[in-house]
Amino acid sequence: MTEAVPTIDVAVFGAGRIGRIHAANLARQPGVRLKYVIDVDPAAAAALAAEHGARAADADGAFGDAAVGASVICSSTDTHADLIERSAAAGKHVFCEKPVDLALERARACEAAVARAGVVCMIGFQRRFDPTFEAVKARIDAGEVGAPEMLVVTSRDPGAPPVAYLERSGGIFKDMLIHDFDIFRWILDDEAETLHATGSCLTDPAVAEAGDIDATAVTIRTRAGRLCQINTSRRAAYGYDQRFELLGSGGMLQAGNLRPTEVTAYTARAVSNDLPEAFFLERYRAAYAREIAHFFAALTRGEPVRTTIADGVKALELAEAATRSWREQRVVRLADSAAASA
Amino acid sequence: MTEAVPTIDVAVFGAGRIGRIHAANLARQPGVRLKYVIDVDPAAAAALAAEHGARAADADGAFGDAAVGASVICSSTDTHADLIERSAAAGKHVFCEKPVDLALERARACEAAVARAGVVCMIGFQRRFDPTFEAVKARIDAGEVGAPEMLVVTSRDPGAPPVAYLERSGGIFKDMLIHDFDIFRWILDDEAETLHATGSCLTDPAVAEAGDIDATAVTIRTRAGRLCQINTSRRAAYGYDQRFELLGSGGMLQAGNLRPTEVTAYTARAVSNDLPEAFFLERYRAAYAREIAHFFAALTRGEPVRTTIADGVKALELAEAATRSWREQRVVRLADSAAASA
Amino acid sequence: MTEAVPTIDVAVFGAGRIGRIHAANLARQPGVRLKYVIDVDPAAAAALAAEHGARAADADGAFGDAAVGASVICSSTDTHADLIERSAAAGKHVFCEKPVDLALERARACEAAVARAGVVCMIGFQRRFDPTFEAVKARIDAGEVGAPEMLVVTSRDPGAPPVAYLERSGGIFKDMLIHDFDIFRWILDDEAETLHATGSCLTDPAVAEAGDIDATAVTIRTRAGRLCQINTSRRAAYGYDQRFELLGSGGMLQAGNLRPTEVTAYTARAVSNDLPEAFFLERYRAAYAREIAHFFAALTRGEPVRTTIADGVKALELAEAATRSWREQRVVRLADSAAASA
Amino acid sequence: MTEAVPTIDVAVFGAGRIGRIHAANLARQPGVRLKYVIDVDPAAAAALAAEHGARAADADGAFGDAAVGASVICSSTDTHADLIERSAAAGKHVFCEKPVDLALERARACEAAVARAGVVCMIGFQRRFDPTFEAVKARIDAGEVGAPEMLVVTSRDPGAPPVAYLERSGGIFKDMLIHDFDIFRWILDDEAETLHATGSCLTDPAVAEAGDIDATAVTIRTRAGRLCQINTSRRAAYGYDQRFELLGSGGMLQAGNLRPTEVTAYTARAVSNDLPEAFFLERYRAAYAREIAHFFAALTRGEPVRTTIADGVKALELAEAATRSWREQRVVRLADSAAASA
Repeated sequence: MTEAVPTIDVAVFGAGRIGRIHAANLARQPGVRLKYVIDVDPAAAAALAAEHGARAADADGAFGDAAVGASVICSSTDTHADLIERSAAAGKHVFCEKPVDLALERARACEAAVARAGVVCMIGFQRRFDPTFEAVKARIDAGEVGAPEMLVVTSRDPGAPPVAYLERSGGIFKDMLIHDFDIFRWILDDEAETLHATGSCLTDPAVAEAGDIDATAVTIRTRAGRLCQINTSRRAAYGYDQRFELLGSGGMLQAGNLRPTEVTAYTARAVSNDLPEAFFLERYRAAYAREIAHFFAALTRGEPVRTTIADGVKALELAEAATRSWREQRVVRLADSAAASA
Repeated sequence: MTEAVPTIDVAVFGAGRIGRIHAANLARQPGVRLKYVIDVDPAAAAALAAEHGARAADADGAFGDAAVGASVICSSTDTHADLIERSAAAGKHVFCEKPVDLALERARACEAAVARAGVVCMIGFQRRFDPTFEAVKARIDAGEVGAPEMLVVTSRDPGAPPVAYLERSGGIFKDMLIHDFDIFRWILDDEAETLHATGSCLTDPAVAEAGDIDATAVTIRTRAGRLCQINTSRRAAYGYDQRFELLGSGGMLQAGNLRPTEVTAYTARAVSNDLPEAFFLERYRAAYAREIAHFFAALTRGEPVRTTIADGVKALELAEAATRSWREQRVVRLADSAAASA
Repeated sequence: MTEAVPTIDVAVFGAGRIGRIHAANLARQPGVRLKYVIDVDPAAAAALAAEHGARAADADGAFGDAAVGASVICSSTDTHADLIERSAAAGKHVFCEKPVDLALERARACEAAVARAGVVCMIGFQRRFDPTFEAVKARIDAGEVGAPEMLVVTSRDPGAPPVAYLERSGGIFKDMLIHDFDIFRWILDDEAETLHATGSCLTDPAVAEAGDIDATAVTIRTRAGRLCQINTSRRAAYGYDQRFELLGSGGMLQAGNLRPTEVTAYTARAVSNDLPEAFFLERYRAAYAREIAHFFAALTRGEPVRTTIADGVKALELAEAATRSWREQRVVRLADSAAASA
Repeated sequence: MTEAVPTIDVAVFGAGRIGRIHAANLARQPGVRLKYVIDVDPAAAAALAAEHGARAADADGAFGDAAVGASVICSSTDTHADLIERSAAAGKHVFCEKPVDLALERARACEAAVARAGVVCMIGFQRRFDPTFEAVKARIDAGEVGAPEMLVVTSRDPGAPPVAYLERSGGIFKDMLIHDFDIFRWILDDEAETLHATGSCLTDPAVAEAGDIDATAVTIRTRAGRLCQINTSRRAAYGYDQRFELLGSGGMLQAGNLRPTEVTAYTARAVSNDLPEAFFLERYRAAYAREIAHFFAALTRGEPVRTTIADGVKALELAEAATRSWREQRVVRLADSAAASA
């Protein structure tokens, strides 16, 4: 309240569901002003802009305005790499939703472009900002359960998206597990040495026809010999299920689901509680607010961001390795994997 | 977004802890504008006003501005009745923190003044807007556990306030249990016929010297024969404890505490979870936001508010009856109680 | 296994539900032999005797056999006092189900007879032997939550017994709450100074016609100023509900219900767990086994028993005081109460 | 009680920890008599025999007694196959602890011998008799969560056994995971098509020197495309951790740990509950009693047993495949595996 905060003007790309959330959250940051909203649908851009006293614009307009300090990229995946590179070229810091790109090489090119331009580029791995997940990480780092040894991640969506979506998604490993791969790297603070992935198509044969699967089981062994298992499904009838547990030499920490209320009902049939929060917008509402706050606080203070474009590239490497392991039914060594892609 | 909302200008009285919360929450309502902040400390008024683009003012200024549609009263208890009456006289709707007044007769006079003026007067029983409590109420009303029969309320503060505060508080029944008496009336949808209260001074002899107690046990039997027990303490070493359970002819509903994260830790000593939220500002954060939204939505739509000044008076009657029961060590009939005060 | 245990021969009075449980449990104690079973129904006595290699007998036969060291009294309430006195007169130790008698004076006479005879007389307050309840007590005594300040007891049966049973039961306070009064004395390690009880008839008008109630709310204030609230109901649609919580100056300990399995089900409607164990035979199965083991171990080692006939008399005093408080709608002082009965 | 049960005489091989448990449990079955105890340590045999009114004997004596109807084999693993074959040859039914043998071929030979002799041979996969696990299985079979799709098994010991034990154990997959492989087959009611296993040595380098690992991560894909992940560790600082969860098309069922008491403690630091039961003897106490009851009830009624020697052989096949997958760092097809061993 007492210290004057210099204002950062921001351009938001994409006025869809997640763009609206980021716009509302960034509008709440002291010293941050939403100046432009860019969307392929001008009406959507105008509506979101109006809500926050901003202007609808096109990309050229935003990049050409020297007053704009940061881009927040929430547009469709196929635009991410271009917009990151254009932002970097224009000297603007970047917050970009995952993934950097579906192609690993293109993602690496973005990483290089960002480095050359010397701008900050944060990737939206919002789970690292979830209060429960963050508390687990802090307690691991504080040594509460000794040396980390094994991580078990459960990550299940409430229902499969339309097949049309899946066809453009890059497959389940790049679309859905990329978050879990980031959690793995963050929580264990280690890198994969070998990875095995398998999966099945259980919800709808159309998924298989689209060349994808809807349930996966991944195992990673790290360089330090730690173990990680990830189980995912596109369909959990009971809602969005986002848990993990970390076994250490001195105990275990579990990150559980949130639920809308703390009501417990006792009837003649059962004792019951609320289902988990319905989907990611509800489950990670606090995380979305906190990641945007982190991004702008880091810019203001000149501090590094927690989830860099390098993290985005690393998660993508794991997603590619998992795709290969599943397709070829073999264990993939990550050194191989990088080599094979190069 | 599409429908134009007429703007309501608001004056907030009291720039303390709860005033700041209400100011921030009302500033977020579409169509609501914080115009004046009034406080005995002009600097506090100015700081809060500045935060929301409002002006510091005095009461005369606010009441004299015909554009002001509503007063939000968060100043000290001894100012509530005056400010309610002045607001009513000026034709402004009122949101006022509990209690209406420490004296039942004065509270009744306010109720009459509000009725004469035809303004809306909502009392800040925020617990009715807590998502967990509200869900329990809705599920009772939907018949999930049959006819309500017994209510058990646990209401414990994390620590006793300074004795200087207690001396001006009206005693534990008016200061702390007034919320629980409102919960009782709301959940059981019934009125007390008899009431028994007892208590002890367990945390600090200075509390007893101030003529008060810090732990109470209250039992109410309603006109319909329902039972309610309330247990309270000024000191729960583990934090703010706010639970209740409703036994019905067909089952039970429990409202539990919230906790900051969903981490479970397994160590060689125990399996443990977070403590409950620390105190009322954290525990009822959502409730405070939702009660203010309700107040302005009700004004806008011309609908009744959920917690009226009549509810404030009824809760105060119970608090007086409880004080008498405790002091006289006898069961109090509520008809008596009203008569005795009249 | 290595130390020779002298054999105690035992006579069990009553071959009903609880008699069969005690018989099976005592038959498992090393050095304890079930010798006689006595029941008004000779076939029931014979069947239970046959199961354990014992003989059906009448009371004279059992009391006249000098080899019998102990009586285990599980017959109907109206026989307890006689059998205790005859056992004492015959120099046999006694284990007797609660209550000692429905009349306080008669119970006191039994207490005196036992004292004169110098026999051990244990009353079957099995809840003190429940592993969960016992762990709470031990942890209070170890100071885990500081000085005990407030006890809240929830005690609800799954369904009301037949009215014919209620008519001979002595009323809900002597029949059902006598256990809760014993829990109160045991957990708080203190005696009642004042007691208030109220109640309602909510399950069946026939209960009221029988002069009884089926839901109660009791508050006790102890000599040391501690508070206790007890809520009971004859009908909990979700099963047998037996919980309490103890608030101390340094925290709280809760004793929860047991459930048959640790299954959690997630469906599209709710997250649910098993109901509590159905009724006292299931809930207190371990407690029944452990109280009988305690009785015979105490006899063998010449140590005192945990629940004496004095405890039985004290619980009955509280039940009488509660009955009077409810009927007269007033607060009862326990000194009065004792005086009034004397 | 009314129907006469023909008596089965039993010989127990092995008077160690698990032998004593089975002996005590079988002594409680109506119509079952422990006649002989055989152990390499005659004093141990004699002590256990004395406890149950049986005789110490040698194997020849037990097999030569035509009155003996069943062998209960709890001796060391290297004696299982011999004793199964000798029992079968003598026409005696068999209950044998897992594993049948460490060598798959020898286990298959036993299976054939049992088939030729026409005796019943039950393998002690006691987890199938755990009330919680059994309830999950029954509820899956009742369709509560739709078609089973994914199983996640967590199986962790509280601490690693001595290295000397590990050296004779056949490795972690045969010694520890054999139970989990049986759970997998039972719960999913399906057979493995491919299996991947990896692991690490994290508790003690001596384990690695002994050619073993102490933490594993296994993934199985079944013929029907279902997925199963198993994570194990020899060391969970918080106790014995035995959980699994089954995701189906319509929901999820979780089997949780048991704990000694239902106490919850609230202190200034945390809300905490008991640790899980300490180890298998406590966790599976009810399961051990129920599996022995099942065995003798099945014999008496001429019904099949739930866990046959074929189940023992199948679990061993999976343990061998897992060992190979781990050593060769590749995905193993189960058809291969069987072929390779043949």
